[in-house]
Amino acid sequence: MHENYDLQQLMELVDQRQFRRLREELSQMNAVDIAEFLDELEAEQEILVFRLLPKELAAEVFTYLEDTEGQEKLIGALSDKELREVLDELYLDDAVDLIEDMPANVVSRILRNTDAATRSQINQLLHYPKDSAGSIMTTEFVFLHPEATVEQSFARIRRVGLDKETVYTCYVTENRALVGVVTVRRMLLSSYETRIRDIMQTNVLSVNTHEDKEDVAQMFSRYDLSALPVVDGENRLVGIITFDDAMDVIEEETTEDFEKMAAILPSDKPYLRTGVLETWRSRIPWLMLLMLSATFTGIIITSFESALAACVVLTSFIPMLSGTGGNSGSQSSVAVIRALSLGEVEFSDMLAVVWKELRVALLCGACLGGANFVKMMAVDRWLMGNPEVTPMVALVVCLTLMLTVVCAKVVGCTLPMAAEKAGIDPAVMASPFITTVVDALSLLIYFAIATRILPI
Amino acid sequence: MHENYDLQQLMELVDQRQFRRLREELSQMNAVDIAEFLDELEAEQEILVFRLLPKELAAEVFTYLEDTEGQEKLIGALSDKELREVLDELYLDDAVDLIEDMPANVVSRILRNTDAATRSQINQLLHYPKDSAGSIMTTEFVFLHPEATVEQSFARIRRVGLDKETVYTCYVTENRALVGVVTVRRMLLSSYETRIRDIMQTNVLSVNTHEDKEDVAQMFSRYDLSALPVVDGENRLVGIITFDDAMDVIEEETTEDFEKMAAILPSDKPYLRTGVLETWRSRIPWLMLLMLSATFTGIIITSFESALAACVVLTSFIPMLSGTGGNSGSQSSVAVIRALSLGEVEFSDMLAVVWKELRVALLCGACLGGANFVKMMAVDRWLMGNPEVTPMVALVVCLTLMLTVVCAKVVGCTLPMAAEKAGIDPAVMASPFITTVVDALSLLIYFAIATRILPI
Repeated sequence: MHENYDLQQLMELVDQRQFRRLREELSQMNAVDIAEFLDELEAEQEILVFRLLPKELAAEVFTYLEDTEGQEKLIGALSDKELREVLDELYLDDAVDLIEDMPANVVSRILRNTDAATRSQINQLLHYPKDSAGSIMTTEFVFLHPEATVEQSFARIRRVGLDKETVYTCYVTENRALVGVVTVRRMLLSSYETRIRDIMQTNVLSVNTHEDKEDVAQMFSRYDLSALPVVDGENRLVGIITFDDAMDVIEEETTEDFEKMAAILPSDKPYLRTGVLETWRSRIPWLMLLMLSATFTGIIITSFESALAACVVLTSFIPMLSGTGGNSGSQSSVAVIRALSLGEVEFSDMLAVVWKELRVALLCGACLGGANFVKMMAVDRWLMGNPEVTPMVALVVCLTLMLTVVCAKVVGCTLPMAAEKAGIDPAVMASPFITTVVDALSLLIYFAIATRILPI
Repeated sequence: MHENYDLQQLMELVDQRQFRRLREELSQMNAVDIAEFLDELEAEQEILVFRLLPKELAAEVFTYLEDTEGQEKLIGALSDKELREVLDELYLDDAVDLIEDMPANVVSRILRNTDAATRSQINQLLHYPKDSAGSIMTTEFVFLHPEATVEQSFARIRRVGLDKETVYTCYVTENRALVGVVTVRRMLLSSYETRIRDIMQTNVLSVNTHEDKEDVAQMFSRYDLSALPVVDGENRLVGIITFDDAMDVIEEETTEDFEKMAAILPSDKPYLRTGVLETWRSRIPWLMLLMLSATFTGIIITSFESALAACVVLTSFIPMLSGTGGNSGSQSSVAVIRALSLGEVEFSDMLAVVWKELRVALLCGACLGGANFVKMMAVDRWLMGNPEVTPMVALVVCLTLMLTVVCAKVVGCTLPMAAEKAGIDPAVMASPFITTVVDALSLLIYFAIATRILPI
């Protein structure tokens, strides 16, 4: 990512304590870049520079600081008065995010420094479960009355809109129940006398507070939404979710999927900020489990030890067979996992998916088997001069290859769908898991075919 | 994904030809759901239902139809007059998207049915390279003059805003050069007499037309943008990109990453809509390449054949070693690939990354080696009563395991970063590739250690 500012130059200004010029430079930058710059500084310098920022900008910069530690450090360095000023400027959902990640003593200091009304709203938001729509919503939205005119509504927006996270979509409520939405665009394009009731859209997409935040985020990309109202069990409007929070959820969930698919327990910290011990803790459980489950492959090989001793050349194709089987299975499982998470496929499509994978597997198996036969004859037997690689051995290897590819692809597409149905995240059924299952399968197939075809 | 409508009931209305009731039902639905419903219908029914929709809604539904085929079919069935009506209502960037995917005869029919001005704009947009910012921008935005008042600007928005994709961020231009942006929010919160120059923000984030669309999409999530102006080489404003298009790019790129990481060539069709042959074509190249590169593991095993014959039990641990090595390597490579794509890590962090992975690897290696030693002694030797599993054999296996894990993690984090530096997509360096490299490495380590420690 190219930077939009000259880090070197800013650093020099800090070192030379040219604070007036620094303030000028910073006022030309946006909050995200300033936060990145602050993260580069030493603690004492950071607080110095932070104090140079105008109040409103300071609060915005604060929400973009790299991680909990950065924010905690800064909170520690701020006076109570400064802290109150920052908190006053924060949007409610950002304040809640902040509190959720802080140690207890910092939380109590934060709550001491907000006014009673905000404190009660924060407490309410903190009660929603971690992955629910309620946990990512903000309670700062503009609501209008259906009988108000456009002119009255603009006056209302002008009056209350300053500290609302979005004013472009306004919610129309009657007795707190959500009855419609109206966009500022629609209002701008109507005459000032028009009543909201006549231009509001009554067919409103909304979600319940307890809905899963990942499903909610998917709705944003499905319907190209910029904001989505959140209602309680009685259809009373309690908050809204804005697209930037939905984008954050999507990014987070995608990272989690990548991690699960690589047998890593999900963490929500950036790579370089995660400590060695923490990284180890997120990686060792699956590694250990998968290693111990390889006991089965060991048992299979041991029980065919005499067959292998009679025809040692068979051993040299084991890595190729399990590798190709694993790759084939991963392709299917990843394709299905992604399709499931984008909502392109659901459990009821099981038969269609298996039927498709089966045909793809037969095609792939035939190609790979054929190519491998030619390769074994041309390279292993003729070029490398290995007399043990007979046409019969090649036949055994290639038949195994084809059957393994077919099994791998069917297992690869079935397991994620079964997991989804059973309420387990299908991402867990990705490459590492499939590979381990396919390893055992390919060996069983290999020895079954070898003992039938070869004189062992 | 739960549906927001009753598909069954709609289908019945179509079958019973109750078009008036159907029209009522459809008018309560949003465009995305209607498009999904249309995709379920037969061609003749689809065109019948499509004709029931009001013009504006029809155009919107059209852009959400599942794929090129669906749109092409419908274009074929529409009369020239109907097609012109749909095209008139399309946003320019949607029209361009449409044209890019259509066969030549359909394209010429589309262009025949748009007016000259739109045709020239479409042609201009079509000239931008496929993955550039220019290719996803729209030229439909509102621009204002710096000397205009808020009241004059609202009047202008009311006049020109109807067919603009977003009106909430307006661009301030002087002689076509971008000099600032002003949001409708800011205008609403200012008095009607305020001049735009006094409330516009002059520090504007913008991108160049030829910038990569993936980088542009990353800017949306980095800066929480709702729209981003696109300028040419002379800072003249030529278009804007809206957040919904950026979200589409992110979703597309994520799917591509998942595919590359599973050794699948990227395709841009949904899973179930991709034909068997097409799926096969996207999967066989990497499978073939990885299978043939397994020749190396074969060669390694063959050259140590006599050692294996002398100590056959060694064979039974090969799958466990290569599996655990592969998994360890995948964890590192996936973590680094994701960090690279989120911009958390860049090439200059190479040393920090390797140093971190090295320490994690030593921890993981020690745990896995220790656990495996205990398991081999307890399960393989004692429980299964295999006398060949001596403490020396267990030592060989566990030392190999530790060294393999360390090598795998270092290779796993280095290759993606090297690929990024070399201009190759790091996602290609994921599990399948790493696994193949680690397979060979683990065997080399295994035999090197075995021939030194064991009497073979």
